[in-house]
Amino acid sequence: MFPYRPGTHQFPYANYPFMPGGYDYSPYSQGGWLGRHSAPEADEGYRMPAQPRLTFVLVHGSWADAHFWDGVAAALRSKGHIVHTPEYAGHGKDPNKQVTHAMITKSVVDYITKLNLRDIILVGHSFGGSVIQKVAEQIPDRIKRLVFWDAFVLKDGESVADELPTQTRQAFEQLAASSKDDTIMLPFPLFRDLFVNTATSEEARRFYAGVTPEPAKPLFEKLDLKAFYALPTPKSYVYFYQDNVFPQGEGYGWNPHMSSRLGLFRLIVSDGDHFTDTRTRPAMVAQKIYEAGRD
Amino acid sequence: MFPYRPGTHQFPYANYPFMPGGYDYSPYSQGGWLGRHSAPEADEGYRMPAQPRLTFVLVHGSWADAHFWDGVAAALRSKGHIVHTPEYAGHGKDPNKQVTHAMITKSVVDYITKLNLRDIILVGHSFGGSVIQKVAEQIPDRIKRLVFWDAFVLKDGESVADELPTQTRQAFEQLAASSKDDTIMLPFPLFRDLFVNTATSEEARRFYAGVTPEPAKPLFEKLDLKAFYALPTPKSYVYFYQDNVFPQGEGYGWNPHMSSRLGLFRLIVSDGDHFTDTRTRPAMVAQKIYEAGRD
Amino acid sequence: MFPYRPGTHQFPYANYPFMPGGYDYSPYSQGGWLGRHSAPEADEGYRMPAQPRLTFVLVHGSWADAHFWDGVAAALRSKGHIVHTPEYAGHGKDPNKQVTHAMITKSVVDYITKLNLRDIILVGHSFGGSVIQKVAEQIPDRIKRLVFWDAFVLKDGESVADELPTQTRQAFEQLAASSKDDTIMLPFPLFRDLFVNTATSEEARRFYAGVTPEPAKPLFEKLDLKAFYALPTPKSYVYFYQDNVFPQGEGYGWNPHMSSRLGLFRLIVSDGDHFTDTRTRPAMVAQKIYEAGRD
Repeated sequence: MFPYRPGTHQFPYANYPFMPGGYDYSPYSQGGWLGRHSAPEADEGYRMPAQPRLTFVLVHGSWADAHFWDGVAAALRSKGHIVHTPEYAGHGKDPNKQVTHAMITKSVVDYITKLNLRDIILVGHSFGGSVIQKVAEQIPDRIKRLVFWDAFVLKDGESVADELPTQTRQAFEQLAASSKDDTIMLPFPLFRDLFVNTATSEEARRFYAGVTPEPAKPLFEKLDLKAFYALPTPKSYVYFYQDNVFPQGEGYGWNPHMSSRLGLFRLIVSDGDHFTDTRTRPAMVAQKIYEAGRD
Repeated sequence: MFPYRPGTHQFPYANYPFMPGGYDYSPYSQGGWLGRHSAPEADEGYRMPAQPRLTFVLVHGSWADAHFWDGVAAALRSKGHIVHTPEYAGHGKDPNKQVTHAMITKSVVDYITKLNLRDIILVGHSFGGSVIQKVAEQIPDRIKRLVFWDAFVLKDGESVADELPTQTRQAFEQLAASSKDDTIMLPFPLFRDLFVNTATSEEARRFYAGVTPEPAKPLFEKLDLKAFYALPTPKSYVYFYQDNVFPQGEGYGWNPHMSSRLGLFRLIVSDGDHFTDTRTRPAMVAQKIYEAGRD
Repeated sequence: MFPYRPGTHQFPYANYPFMPGGYDYSPYSQGGWLGRHSAPEADEGYRMPAQPRLTFVLVHGSWADAHFWDGVAAALRSKGHIVHTPEYAGHGKDPNKQVTHAMITKSVVDYITKLNLRDIILVGHSFGGSVIQKVAEQIPDRIKRLVFWDAFVLKDGESVADELPTQTRQAFEQLAASSKDDTIMLPFPLFRDLFVNTATSEEARRFYAGVTPEPAKPLFEKLDLKAFYALPTPKSYVYFYQDNVFPQGEGYGWNPHMSSRLGLFRLIVSDGDHFTDTRTRPAMVAQKIYEAGRD
């Protein structure tokens, strides 16, 4: 989007009237959770000067939906950026949890092509990393840069579950087996200590109230990623060093274990965890994603 | 301690009159070292809102005694928490340096049981990690959560020395062998660059003045930890990334090398080193320990 | 330099009149790039109290010359330190790019001996780490402490290229082979994402305008470092955790992969990247180098 290209579609209004069927645009709601519970002082240092306008497409991860991005999207828009937060199959309002990784990928591809988005910064968080890997294979010409934020970068032929420590993978298998619909619901103690470890107890409880069971199948599907590894698209990795979903090192983790598979990539680091900062410091998260995405 | 349980013993007064024989209560002394040398501005950012009251038992490491915690304990108490800092056999005022790991463990267990403490957040620093592992085996029902702060998490059958790089272990063996009483005194250059690497020269010298020879035997004892690894007690790990006691990675170090042995644990990270911040930024250390210990 | 030693040469004036032939003294130029583009607010937190005077010799790395240190040297001088920034063979104003690692080492050794510098804190950045390893072998008695800042610490018999991931080493070989004079010019996308990953696009472009082709041969020469590994000189390692020149871990990187080869060393960590902070936060870089160098 910089330099300005007149052919590109723009969505400068949060309440843009027509949305593609089945997906949520997630405009930032002023009266929402964030308005009541954000910590403006802690986030103050991230007020930024005017930024060249970019178009971001933010792809959430597991145990989340498009509202995951509400605060971050608002912060990016307040700097003049265009932000899309597609919600994919099996998540949010979608009642059908029997989805495949390919269906999820199709959700994001369809969203981008129907809106004819171009020159996008495609951002994937967590499981969303494996989604943007597959999306990039299908519509590489629309993508200016890929940004992985504490996100899976799978090897060709791997599944998300292949990157989990044995103990975690087995726990997920048991949780899925004990569910009625092949979904995994995170027990609170696990969510609290792994996903929102820096949050207050109250914030953790509030966050957990929005967590719904995650379709298990896409986590265990092995993905053909040969085309991804042939793409010349520029790539960035955002790593938050209090992220506790995995141990970081000893053969596991986001950075450098998975990030280094990207080959040449830009690294941006901050001190957040896996989920908390999207609500408590959305402007910080937005700034880091911007630093990863800019020219 | 939250929600409030009326049966629990409380010590809201720093000058509580009766202490169990042989151990020091270490009330924070206003006229002490800290009052003169703390850096209040640097620590300012860690002023916190009111916190639900917790009971902390802080277990120091090697080359330290209960006064190690003076500033941190004061900071936690100023937030309304109850803080105990037991000093264990072979340390502080104890003239007998011929102690075993079991004697050290017994010191802490006796302290907790005599005061009938319950629902405690049991915190171990450095060597203190191996102590709280053994304490937890003996009185698991009194412990609400275990917090390891740059602390040893030993595998079953391991000694502390087994986790040291070969060069360090050999140096410790030589220092112990050359002593008259099987103790290890840290040479200043080693203490300065490994334990207080971020301190000023003056702070490092002042810190070193309080260091006394450490009983060697407990560092080389192999510990049976089968019971520890069967405990369901919640656990946290606090990692300070300028800690330089070990290289962090390549098969050594606090996090993730030893922390990941805890299985499911909460991670909290800060930028301190092994000793310095207890004196220069005690409120920061207190806040991180609180974040690790809270519900 | 502390305590004061009357025999030591001092250069308290930035415009000291006689310089050894062939090397640049690089006094900080007020009208230079830094004056226009530094970010004083972000750097404010690093204003320091008076510091005991030290003598620093700062040795730059590849794709840089002595001006790399302009802002950092000025910040150190403003605290009362003496700072030298020798420029070595094949770099800066030297038109001859056909140099060897030994010629580069000789440049720095000659600079130090001609000025009869003693008790120096010898700092190497990046490739400069391999240079100070060799310099230390030749003039150990003049060196008070060695400081490696995101710098190579080569094993005996290794070359800089031996520490590069295969992909990077092959890219460098191809770039050198396609040049007319066995030099390597970094393509902008690689420089932008690996060397100045945290910079704005504008800062990155401005930085890149000063980058010139680097002589390839010294990067591929295997060095005899037996004497280095017998030196008792105190050592420090400064690690900036957004440095993206290498993946950090999985067998590569600055810390702990190369730093731990130093044996006993002091660690200082900050959040910068490989190049950017010398221009955007020179006082921060100066403070970290001071913390690494002080007694």
